[in-house]
Amino acid sequence: MSIKDQFTRHIHSLQNKICLGLEEVDGKAKFRSDVWERPGGGGGDSRVISGGDVFEKGGVNVSVVHGDLTQQAAQQLKVEGTSFFACGLSLVIHPFNPFVPTVHANWRYFELYNESGATVDAWFGGGTDLTPYYLVEEDVVHFHSMQKKCCEDFDTNFYPTFKKQCDNYFSNHHRGEERRGVGGIFFDHCRANEKHDLIFWKNFMEANGLIFLDGYSPIVNKRKHAPFSDYHKYWQEIRRGRYVEFNLLHDRGTLFGIKTNGRTESILMSLPPTVRFDYDYQPATGSEEEKLLQILKEPIQWV
Amino acid sequence: MSIKDQFTRHIHSLQNKICLGLEEVDGKAKFRSDVWERPGGGGGDSRVISGGDVFEKGGVNVSVVHGDLTQQAAQQLKVEGTSFFACGLSLVIHPFNPFVPTVHANWRYFELYNESGATVDAWFGGGTDLTPYYLVEEDVVHFHSMQKKCCEDFDTNFYPTFKKQCDNYFSNHHRGEERRGVGGIFFDHCRANEKHDLIFWKNFMEANGLIFLDGYSPIVNKRKHAPFSDYHKYWQEIRRGRYVEFNLLHDRGTLFGIKTNGRTESILMSLPPTVRFDYDYQPATGSEEEKLLQILKEPIQWV
Repeated sequence: MSIKDQFTRHIHSLQNKICLGLEEVDGKAKFRSDVWERPGGGGGDSRVISGGDVFEKGGVNVSVVHGDLTQQAAQQLKVEGTSFFACGLSLVIHPFNPFVPTVHANWRYFELYNESGATVDAWFGGGTDLTPYYLVEEDVVHFHSMQKKCCEDFDTNFYPTFKKQCDNYFSNHHRGEERRGVGGIFFDHCRANEKHDLIFWKNFMEANGLIFLDGYSPIVNKRKHAPFSDYHKYWQEIRRGRYVEFNLLHDRGTLFGIKTNGRTESILMSLPPTVRFDYDYQPATGSEEEKLLQILKEPIQWV
Repeated sequence: MSIKDQFTRHIHSLQNKICLGLEEVDGKAKFRSDVWERPGGGGGDSRVISGGDVFEKGGVNVSVVHGDLTQQAAQQLKVEGTSFFACGLSLVIHPFNPFVPTVHANWRYFELYNESGATVDAWFGGGTDLTPYYLVEEDVVHFHSMQKKCCEDFDTNFYPTFKKQCDNYFSNHHRGEERRGVGGIFFDHCRANEKHDLIFWKNFMEANGLIFLDGYSPIVNKRKHAPFSDYHKYWQEIRRGRYVEFNLLHDRGTLFGIKTNGRTESILMSLPPTVRFDYDYQPATGSEEEKLLQILKEPIQWV
């Protein structure tokens, strides 16, 4: 079976696993499936959850698309080719309780073809990152430990490299490099090279997808019944505003999707359910909210 | 007095007039002034209102800035020059009551200089547009009538041209050309030409600024005590989500400001106070909410 068929099969199976795992954690809400077709070729399956006991809004989306590569898309990707295949799983989960962090993950594969249909380029990309509203150190350490362990099964350089790339990528540059969250790992343009072939990368992507629930669910289960005040919720909505700013101003995947006529609802399912934008909001000096901001401005090594 | 000094004086005076007028309509909240300096030259005065009886959040900002033109900024503006002067008044007002429309207006002036300091380019731009959450025809007609009348005092071509430009500009292209609101007028690159010199344009900008309150305040006064339900508020927050999408994905002014290291809080004061992003939200067939959507997808002539 070709790499693209193997990986496509994997993300469909992973989608089922992750949805089931998250439904179990929520205990009430179920994902509903929205299957769609792409006019230019292929389609997807958007699984959406909302109004749960734990998860206020979330999506676990698979898309498997192919077709002609527009000039605009080629420019955006900085690649050459006349047609493409792309598949991926992308998820964002927004819990209601401000002590449960938001999580995002994505694993994707691209192939580019020339006019004769020969493959001229192929690469994987993806990552997983955590966005808490309040800093609970043991949770962040658990999350990073899981990612580190998974990386080390493949290459000891991966975690330090991908952790740094994650901090650099998920940053609101227009707010003095304030990070969206406490990071995780981020990697892109993972091509066959002298060290690793495409099969190796595929195996890493798959392994990283399969540990997702182990990295996230224990944190949710620990915090989902944490008592919180209106102010905790207020702060969560302020921070969700920053999530919106990052996704709409800086996120390459979102902007690529929007500019290349992707399926808007699936792309923007990442936006949080309720959000607040105050003018120049500043948390109190020495508060828990300010403590979070300091970490977002100067990321640290968690493991 | 130079055009830039005259126009700078005008926008400062207009800022006072508009803030006073809106405070009168609100009856409770007052604007607070946030004076700031720009490291590269100049600065601004951001006047912000929040938690009013009528206005949930709003800003009436003046900025008067100058300095070196970065290559990035020149590319964004598609102009040439080594230094610049820019001044403008920009306002966005978000009322609490979903039957009171949001309003946005902007009047701005740019000058570009070459290395010897000679002016190589100068132009005005701006506009005023209305974003209702429920369509009250007489309100929209009043708003457009005021803009049309103001335009016709200067040039009978202005209103039809600027009205169409407004509909084209304030559009969420990624949502099948769904407009942000019911428009108004929008104009840019208003340079001295065979028909109109810069003084003429300046006079038009000033006149258009001075009728702002007459176009907006009567609508607010008529609707500010309108009873509304939780659902009306819900729909307003869904629509505010589209306002955020437009401003962060498409608005040239916002993106220019963010990319050229503008003052983030002043640029993003335009974002609504509370916002909701639901997956694939669809209003009921035949509802008032759907009626609004139809007008946003196919703008009509109001006057």
